[in-house]
Amino acid sequence: MNGFDGYPHVIYAQQFSRRWLEEDLFPLARQMKPIGDQGGCDMLRGKRAFSWFYQASTRTAVSLAMAMELLGGRVVFSTENAREFSSASKGETLIDTIRVLNRLRPDVIFLRYDREIGAEIAAHVSKASIISAGDRQPNDEPKSPYSGQHPTQGNLDVFTVVERFGQIDGLKIAMVGDLINGRTVRSLSYHLGKFRGVEIYYVSPPNARMRDDVKDYLCRHNIRFTESADLREVAPKVNVIYQTRTQKECGTNFDRNDHNLGYFVVDQGILDLMKKDAIIMHPLPRVDEITPEVDDDPRAVYLTDQIDCGLYTRMALLKMILAPKV
Amino acid sequence: MNGFDGYPHVIYAQQFSRRWLEEDLFPLARQMKPIGDQGGCDMLRGKRAFSWFYQASTRTAVSLAMAMELLGGRVVFSTENAREFSSASKGETLIDTIRVLNRLRPDVIFLRYDREIGAEIAAHVSKASIISAGDRQPNDEPKSPYSGQHPTQGNLDVFTVVERFGQIDGLKIAMVGDLINGRTVRSLSYHLGKFRGVEIYYVSPPNARMRDDVKDYLCRHNIRFTESADLREVAPKVNVIYQTRTQKECGTNFDRNDHNLGYFVVDQGILDLMKKDAIIMHPLPRVDEITPEVDDDPRAVYLTDQIDCGLYTRMALLKMILAPKV
Amino acid sequence: MNGFDGYPHVIYAQQFSRRWLEEDLFPLARQMKPIGDQGGCDMLRGKRAFSWFYQASTRTAVSLAMAMELLGGRVVFSTENAREFSSASKGETLIDTIRVLNRLRPDVIFLRYDREIGAEIAAHVSKASIISAGDRQPNDEPKSPYSGQHPTQGNLDVFTVVERFGQIDGLKIAMVGDLINGRTVRSLSYHLGKFRGVEIYYVSPPNARMRDDVKDYLCRHNIRFTESADLREVAPKVNVIYQTRTQKECGTNFDRNDHNLGYFVVDQGILDLMKKDAIIMHPLPRVDEITPEVDDDPRAVYLTDQIDCGLYTRMALLKMILAPKV
Repeated sequence: MNGFDGYPHVIYAQQFSRRWLEEDLFPLARQMKPIGDQGGCDMLRGKRAFSWFYQASTRTAVSLAMAMELLGGRVVFSTENAREFSSASKGETLIDTIRVLNRLRPDVIFLRYDREIGAEIAAHVSKASIISAGDRQPNDEPKSPYSGQHPTQGNLDVFTVVERFGQIDGLKIAMVGDLINGRTVRSLSYHLGKFRGVEIYYVSPPNARMRDDVKDYLCRHNIRFTESADLREVAPKVNVIYQTRTQKECGTNFDRNDHNLGYFVVDQGILDLMKKDAIIMHPLPRVDEITPEVDDDPRAVYLTDQIDCGLYTRMALLKMILAPKV
Repeated sequence: MNGFDGYPHVIYAQQFSRRWLEEDLFPLARQMKPIGDQGGCDMLRGKRAFSWFYQASTRTAVSLAMAMELLGGRVVFSTENAREFSSASKGETLIDTIRVLNRLRPDVIFLRYDREIGAEIAAHVSKASIISAGDRQPNDEPKSPYSGQHPTQGNLDVFTVVERFGQIDGLKIAMVGDLINGRTVRSLSYHLGKFRGVEIYYVSPPNARMRDDVKDYLCRHNIRFTESADLREVAPKVNVIYQTRTQKECGTNFDRNDHNLGYFVVDQGILDLMKKDAIIMHPLPRVDEITPEVDDDPRAVYLTDQIDCGLYTRMALLKMILAPKV
Repeated sequence: MNGFDGYPHVIYAQQFSRRWLEEDLFPLARQMKPIGDQGGCDMLRGKRAFSWFYQASTRTAVSLAMAMELLGGRVVFSTENAREFSSASKGETLIDTIRVLNRLRPDVIFLRYDREIGAEIAAHVSKASIISAGDRQPNDEPKSPYSGQHPTQGNLDVFTVVERFGQIDGLKIAMVGDLINGRTVRSLSYHLGKFRGVEIYYVSPPNARMRDDVKDYLCRHNIRFTESADLREVAPKVNVIYQTRTQKECGTNFDRNDHNLGYFVVDQGILDLMKKDAIIMHPLPRVDEITPEVDDDPRAVYLTDQIDCGLYTRMALLKMILAPKV
């Protein structure tokens, strides 16, 4: 709630202090579990959302819709085709669109934009709260420290870790895959920078390494990170393996099975190397970068706890923004 | 209700016994008419659905949505673009998708899948009820007796017949069109196999004949069937003409007006040959296989009673699955 | 309310008399403002809409959805892909679709059709109210005085003018852009024909002039109009500049910056020529035909008052159609 004084938007991970995460978001998210278990509540009755996606992200859209629903709110209008459909062929600007939507009096707009800095731009002109459902991954150098993020994913990812380990300080976390373009690993890195003694292992092929803006941020926050091209070396050392898919639609492409490049798949072999109480996360969709045999391992949380944590953190955010005093 | 003990899914026609149809589904469907007439009721208040279509079937989607609505339930999220939008270009598996959706706690998922056996696979991993809105028609030999079906269509089709004739035993039913690929005629055939003394006439060009798995099923259930290529010969004999469109998107294509192939159009000429109290059905959309002059004939039910029966049977299914004790 | 005796549809501007606009629609629309300010009301509780768009018009769709929502009603099913998805490749007729939708008992259908006369055809077969969200612009001569219209846009446009000036009689109104194809300028012209002493300036390139059917209508109603190709000449004279975009998708294309053709952009230069209390309107989306510097001028209403007036007039229409006695 404190994170929203005067700025009721969720745009980028750097908005949120460690204190806010630990004292506001996480406790409130824990309260959401019993609410979900009992089928919901009424605290956001009368609150209205637009779900306005310029690029499909159906998993995020349905998670946000259910979060609203479980709190008694309503998504009044929803589109995943905003890019194709809501403009002349030359394109109405995002600013115009957000202004128009605002006049229709939504309380919150879930915005997924397919170019950079969309959520930040929208927040400048929107009285309704903007909850970013992701900016497009930057193919080139990011225009802003805030771009190419997926802040609610970052929130739920750190909450998943905290719920499993009780804390983040001192943990070792591997991020694997297309690190140069991945939104989720950027947001997660920015979140981890708030904690102490965290050690990050970036595992990727050479052409998909994490960008400098994130590394600079980590340096400024005294977070150690190492780069590797071999998950087999990293797996025994870490508490969390955060696997991501290859961002084919952004052009970075590598063959997971080309072991000349390195080792980037989570499979039985990696399971055998991992700590007994480590966890495997993935923002989904998972394609072939985690083999199916891994799913039933108790350390695999990407289809279970991580989804739950997504629902609860999004419910908590909505409650903070739309019904802070309740 | 009995049909759902331990298996709260609607996947294929063979699930449902004749007794269940006559003693559970049909009576409950009849109770839905006055509920619809009075504008709805609250018996499914608080119940939530996802409508997850990998292939468009807007008529089924809107019918299921209104069924939920009339009972006080809610479709929280709806897509007809699940194929295009909810996966990486290589494709998230249906199993992963259903698992993820389940964590968001819907009570029911309306699933239309564009490949075979989707609903069956989904039911294996879903705690939420799966109501199949259709599997893709099998272009080749079906993988399973359960594949290529549209079970709620089968339910509503037999209900339409029962409401008109009081029974199905002893009736003569013609199915016309693309029988090799049509989902609806497969589900209808499976349903008819539960009854006695039914006689089926399959009217199609030679390359679009009903498949062997259905014919074997009918043989095992002592249902007589005849194959014909001329509706003019069949029309005077039957109580029901069940017309279907050519499934162009599945490759089987024939010119309705090429009478060298046979006669497959329902027009004034067929009306003149039909029994006075016979009926004409069609799962829709109807294109040119029923000529417009037929619409006003009292025997044409495809735009009237059949749609009503669809709404009532889907309401009845939802009530059975989601509020059995009410 | 009077406008709907026996014909509960909103199809074309000519349906509505001046008296109905001034004594019924506008006063009721004014009452909608405080309802919106307080977050809505319940007067349409239990009323259900389908939003059935054959062509995207997301702005209109979301405005109608919020109008329903603010009055306590519900859009039960919504699609902007009706063309692509709800039919066989040859295409189910609109008439069949509307009949099928009617059997599902909606109270109102918001229909955006991509060919001419769709709303009129739908109204003939629909018991549910049809509110047209626009017919396709006629590329050729219109088939009907009712075609190629966007009646709710016409309503909100005249309401915007009345709210600003207190009246329409005696005003001078410029319409700029692609007048040969634009739906909104047709509906607006038909509306203005109901008033006295109105003077219209049509500003367009020679190949995009307003069509004869509208001009004939204006002549019959004693409305003077002038054609020009230079907004700079017209701007000092008018109370309203109604700018529209080039309808690229209809083939009429002209370069706004080609001043050999004329002057068709609203920019600072035009602002400097305009009367102090004139207003600038646009149905949106705005692309480059109004430059961004214009937005902050108090005379620019296209992102502010005009959107509000759209919401209020649509709420008023819904109330009249669905809850006339409340």
